[in-house]
Amino acid sequence: MPTVRVTRKVHFSAGHRLARPGLSDEENRELYGACSNPAGHGHNYDLEVTVRGEVDPDTGYVIDLKRVKELVHRAVVDDVDHANLNVDVEWMEGVIPTAENLVVRIWDRLEGNLDGAELVSLKLWETERNMVEYRGE
Amino acid sequence: MPTVRVTRKVHFSAGHRLARPGLSDEENRELYGACSNPAGHGHNYDLEVTVRGEVDPDTGYVIDLKRVKELVHRAVVDDVDHANLNVDVEWMEGVIPTAENLVVRIWDRLEGNLDGAELVSLKLWETERNMVEYRGE
Amino acid sequence: MPTVRVTRKVHFSAGHRLARPGLSDEENRELYGACSNPAGHGHNYDLEVTVRGEVDPDTGYVIDLKRVKELVHRAVVDDVDHANLNVDVEWMEGVIPTAENLVVRIWDRLEGNLDGAELVSLKLWETERNMVEYRGE
Amino acid sequence: MPTVRVTRKVHFSAGHRLARPGLSDEENRELYGACSNPAGHGHNYDLEVTVRGEVDPDTGYVIDLKRVKELVHRAVVDDVDHANLNVDVEWMEGVIPTAENLVVRIWDRLEGNLDGAELVSLKLWETERNMVEYRGE
Amino acid sequence: MPTVRVTRKVHFSAGHRLARPGLSDEENRELYGACSNPAGHGHNYDLEVTVRGEVDPDTGYVIDLKRVKELVHRAVVDDVDHANLNVDVEWMEGVIPTAENLVVRIWDRLEGNLDGAELVSLKLWETERNMVEYRGE
Amino acid sequence: MPTVRVTRKVHFSAGHRLARPGLSDEENRELYGACSNPAGHGHNYDLEVTVRGEVDPDTGYVIDLKRVKELVHRAVVDDVDHANLNVDVEWMEGVIPTAENLVVRIWDRLEGNLDGAELVSLKLWETERNMVEYRGE
Repeated sequence: MPTVRVTRKVHFSAGHRLARPGLSDEENRELYGACSNPAGHGHNYDLEVTVRGEVDPDTGYVIDLKRVKELVHRAVVDDVDHANLNVDVEWMEGVIPTAENLVVRIWDRLEGNLDGAELVSLKLWETERNMVEYRGE
Repeated sequence: MPTVRVTRKVHFSAGHRLARPGLSDEENRELYGACSNPAGHGHNYDLEVTVRGEVDPDTGYVIDLKRVKELVHRAVVDDVDHANLNVDVEWMEGVIPTAENLVVRIWDRLEGNLDGAELVSLKLWETERNMVEYRGE
Repeated sequence: MPTVRVTRKVHFSAGHRLARPGLSDEENRELYGACSNPAGHGHNYDLEVTVRGEVDPDTGYVIDLKRVKELVHRAVVDDVDHANLNVDVEWMEGVIPTAENLVVRIWDRLEGNLDGAELVSLKLWETERNMVEYRGE
Repeated sequence: MPTVRVTRKVHFSAGHRLARPGLSDEENRELYGACSNPAGHGHNYDLEVTVRGEVDPDTGYVIDLKRVKELVHRAVVDDVDHANLNVDVEWMEGVIPTAENLVVRIWDRLEGNLDGAELVSLKLWETERNMVEYRGE
Repeated sequence: MPTVRVTRKVHFSAGHRLARPGLSDEENRELYGACSNPAGHGHNYDLEVTVRGEVDPDTGYVIDLKRVKELVHRAVVDDVDHANLNVDVEWMEGVIPTAENLVVRIWDRLEGNLDGAELVSLKLWETERNMVEYRGE
Repeated sequence: MPTVRVTRKVHFSAGHRLARPGLSDEENRELYGACSNPAGHGHNYDLEVTVRGEVDPDTGYVIDLKRVKELVHRAVVDDVDHANLNVDVEWMEGVIPTAENLVVRIWDRLEGNLDGAELVSLKLWETERNMVEYRGE
């Protein structure tokens, strides 16, 4: 059977502040610019979840994308949507909430939890001009 | 001379929390849902600024859109980008930072400050599905 | 209080066939081209619902857009999403399912059913290049 | 019968240079900035053509949008696509090819030439951030 | 010479119904949800065709994208646009018209028929949130 | 540390004409169609620059995307924005300004000049339907 990649886009809105523990506000501003503003800011995030698998000849699906949506909402979106990534999300503890760290932690939440489908790529758009992609490498 | 409307889109990312002063966190959650999360969240905002005027026969412009961009950045974007609308923006004091209140306050910042061009509409997208428009009524 | 227009976008996918009762397939093909293909085709529709009202000073809202979404889903999207507009939708009976007729019937479903908010515009995108707007005129 | 506005989007790519006759290159650079670069530059333009009319009860159409596309291509797109607006387009002679002047001239090409449909708005996007609208005022 | 990938996007609108032969309507509804609605529904599909090759030093092209468009329209779009994928398209016979099965059959239509260019990827968007990609594996 | 790809989108508007030296205008029209129009035309180009690297545990960044933007503007956008690719851009000399040749030359401008980050992909959209990608092969 042919192997196809299937992608589901989901959206969430979250707040964050970029700051390294142990640095002063001035040092963080030098490092992160306006992203270190102490009161925080936020973004509308777009997440593209891609899994790969053989097409099931009985259903014509690799995996039902409605099921992917459900699993991603349960494992990720329900926790981060309208939340503050610095203080509200247990599985973001201990890392600075850059897009890079966020996409890697989302991978850890999803890998092995997609009904057996193989996760191959996560793309996370923080703004319409900035995107990060993680492939589990 | 013909009268033309010209529009400039600008972008900013900001944080906010919706909560009415005097209400408890539970009451605010009932009123605003997840938008009242105490630690705040945020959005990528798109703002469309529309002015109307006669086309200047010498330049072919109603107004140079680079100039509109410059004026909107100075009066609005520089204050709200990567800021928290509840605590960082002086001209948002005293109102709950809903999109409706934000677009009306932006109107007050821009009207009469566009080199004589007549402001006729502000559209503010908070997410790709939610938009508010103010026409000064 | 200022008067603001607030817009919510919703999406649905539906099937349809354009054909005038009483005409032969050949006559309908002459009138509607490929849109009259007897086995039908379909589209991803985007609907923008705009209501107008004064900003409530207590909430900062004209109307909660989550509530608009809920009402539009109940009155419209639940009926048309993944449905065939020619045979599955009771309130489309008796009209050819063009975008024009669809947007007017959607207006009839929503007007007076938006918690008192004043409906002022419906925009319906049938493809990314074709759109119709109804303002109740 | 209800009155509906129907919109068709078309696209074209064109070159232009902004410069006022009688001014030196330096003076034009002061007036138009990089837009006056003597060798010219160009854009992908998006044009939204909106007409208004009653819905024909026999067809369910205000006007067949395929027909609008055909008429707009014949009167406008065929002349400007992959052309230089300063030298190749007869009906742009005598004006500086700003978006404002272009949209007004396109109005003159289309008004009265849309099979009797009433032209009510032309929106012309020069970039994804700059747009002009003409309503025949 | 450098090897470059070139991509052409095309669009079509089609109808379909997801149902496995031999299952009842109730069983298909359990399997496919609303996608199994007996009267069918439809989508606006976006297809991105990517070919790879060396840049021809004489033309600066891998392959003229106008030629790619022409070939894809002839082999694919002319058959599926405004068609019903369950009954109107000969080369979809024998498979359930999921996006996965559709993209694989489109690959079979295009591979070896692109003037010698090497087909490396097909991306098919069924909605703005659901996409499948086939790379011939 | 995990390896992440980070992407920054930038935009520019430029003019060009496709014509092979030594061919007549008629021969170039046969080869390039309207793209060979002697007076030139132009496009809004979107460029996606992707670099790959390990996430720095101290900053949570692969590389600050504001720094990528700055470097790409300095090396590429400042030269091509509002310029004519046939005559104004020194590093385009000697090649026909197709998207393929442009993306390869941009690669040469950026590779090794991104503060040590590894350039892995450049995607260049010439129109919303035509895209080329170069990966340094």
